[in-house]
Amino acid sequence: MTDKKHTEIITVGKENLIERLTGGFEMRQTTTVAGVGDDAAVVARDDENYTLFSTDLLLEGVNFDLVYFPLKHLGYKAVVVGCSDILAMNGRAEQLTLALGISSKFSVERLEEFYAGARAACEDLGVDLVGGDLKSSVTGLVISISALGSVARERLVRRSGAQPNDLICVTGDLGAAYMGLHLLEREKRAFDGHPSPQPSFEGYEYLLRRQLMPAARRDVIESLADAGLVPTSMIDLSDGLAADLLRICRSSQCGARIYLDKLPIARETYALAEELNADPVVAALNGGDDHELLFTVPLSARETVARIGGIDIIGHITPDGTGAFLVTPDGAEVQITTP
Amino acid sequence: MTDKKHTEIITVGKENLIERLTGGFEMRQTTTVAGVGDDAAVVARDDENYTLFSTDLLLEGVNFDLVYFPLKHLGYKAVVVGCSDILAMNGRAEQLTLALGISSKFSVERLEEFYAGARAACEDLGVDLVGGDLKSSVTGLVISISALGSVARERLVRRSGAQPNDLICVTGDLGAAYMGLHLLEREKRAFDGHPSPQPSFEGYEYLLRRQLMPAARRDVIESLADAGLVPTSMIDLSDGLAADLLRICRSSQCGARIYLDKLPIARETYALAEELNADPVVAALNGGDDHELLFTVPLSARETVARIGGIDIIGHITPDGTGAFLVTPDGAEVQITTP
Repeated sequence: MTDKKHTEIITVGKENLIERLTGGFEMRQTTTVAGVGDDAAVVARDDENYTLFSTDLLLEGVNFDLVYFPLKHLGYKAVVVGCSDILAMNGRAEQLTLALGISSKFSVERLEEFYAGARAACEDLGVDLVGGDLKSSVTGLVISISALGSVARERLVRRSGAQPNDLICVTGDLGAAYMGLHLLEREKRAFDGHPSPQPSFEGYEYLLRRQLMPAARRDVIESLADAGLVPTSMIDLSDGLAADLLRICRSSQCGARIYLDKLPIARETYALAEELNADPVVAALNGGDDHELLFTVPLSARETVARIGGIDIIGHITPDGTGAFLVTPDGAEVQITTP
Repeated sequence: MTDKKHTEIITVGKENLIERLTGGFEMRQTTTVAGVGDDAAVVARDDENYTLFSTDLLLEGVNFDLVYFPLKHLGYKAVVVGCSDILAMNGRAEQLTLALGISSKFSVERLEEFYAGARAACEDLGVDLVGGDLKSSVTGLVISISALGSVARERLVRRSGAQPNDLICVTGDLGAAYMGLHLLEREKRAFDGHPSPQPSFEGYEYLLRRQLMPAARRDVIESLADAGLVPTSMIDLSDGLAADLLRICRSSQCGARIYLDKLPIARETYALAEELNADPVVAALNGGDDHELLFTVPLSARETVARIGGIDIIGHITPDGTGAFLVTPDGAEVQITTP
């Protein structure tokens, strides 16, 4: 229990810290193809397929607030979060386990709401819940989700395959989930102490849906397969465009240029940002929880991407050492950093 | 957020609750062989093997107390807990993920202690750490462990295969981890507020080791394989002999008779129980965290079991409807219940 040296975690950075902590682990199993450093681990299954394996943790007070997060939606989101990691490896989610830490004061009925949401998501995503554990918690609701999936060997996509001149693509739009969270936090403050809160979210239903009921983009993975296109790199947009693009640059040893006027931002995100006197681009760059896909494709795939639809090309990959920058409409380059 | 009906969780019981919550989930994937209700889920791998998949959650204040649980030992134990579920299906653990929720006040050095322990256990058990995530926690340390393993199809053992007249076997001894916990709790109380606690555990090192550094019984699984013996049912002893034997009875639809004078209880467990004026049999029946194996074998395997060594035969399986009882040396039968 001696703690002579005390290096604060915040000074190291999450990526460096995980590398530092797990770097010394040797891989002994012949079935281990790829470990720490991607959205999911890659395990040999048979001659043609890999098994994908990932874990996520959602913690009360950090990842969700039960004051405004309905349990049914939370159950749905937990499954989406678990499956997104498998999709981001270009795979298909197949099995899922859910382990919960719950206060003894939690009623059976509230737990049933959570599982009803989880069941709806399992149906939507075609994934099987194969394991469940319940533990007592004295420290708030804890949700652990692990997922198994599969991918044909030649279709596996990792973070590390981006090449200079590749196009940078994103699905859906950016920052809406983050603005939805802001809206919920604002209403929580406004109605704090009010006996029967009836918040009005008129006009912003889209933002709430993006925060409370995100979709895992299985449709995009299927469209890419139908089009015969394998991205060179891919990642789940869970921590914001800036952080996740930097992860691709780091893994692929490359730089990037993305263009401000190409970023897909929803009308409602602009509207609420204006109302809150906030910058919608900051929401798009740093807002998490979108669970869209960020991926790169060769320049030659431009038309294929356009044909699929619902995908925006926001920039391109540059050689190693050139850094990652956001290019404004007047040609200025702003270095991309994480908050 | 309406909560009209409020059924307390404690009134339902964990097993019934998990069944109630997960019963409505349909299985759609052709690769799903067995889901909720065993130590690990079973997923088809290839024509000859299954993949095993399990998740565990360890929560501060419930499963461990950082006041006396050294982080290095906690890292070791987390890996053991994860692998035990795979071993209990008669499998071999291969890959592991660790996701932690940590307070921002946690230093990098303390995290390194945890991972050093986890690394030692991975080495001892030959398992690969393939995924890691770190989340902020405002509610104490949260440890989520998921494991993948494999088993030849004909060697898979579930909770549900016990037959009347089968012998009930346990590895190691029972209740020592629980008594180790009592010892640590006692010393914590005794030294509460003391500026430099130097607790004396002389004579009880074994109990401490059983609580702080349990072993996953990979050796037993290998010995069973070497002897060509496949148990008819098996479970990881994590919640105490009583609870885990009742799980086998429930899954196998059978009863059981175990004999008080056959229960393997360590000398140190007896000694501390006497000192604390406690009943060592209660510790053996209800004490958790032993991570030994409880399994059943056909009557014909008695000599094989004896030859392997380190395994005690504590009773036998009886037909469905005959209940589960502890038989005392004078022939009295005491019904086995969970606390």
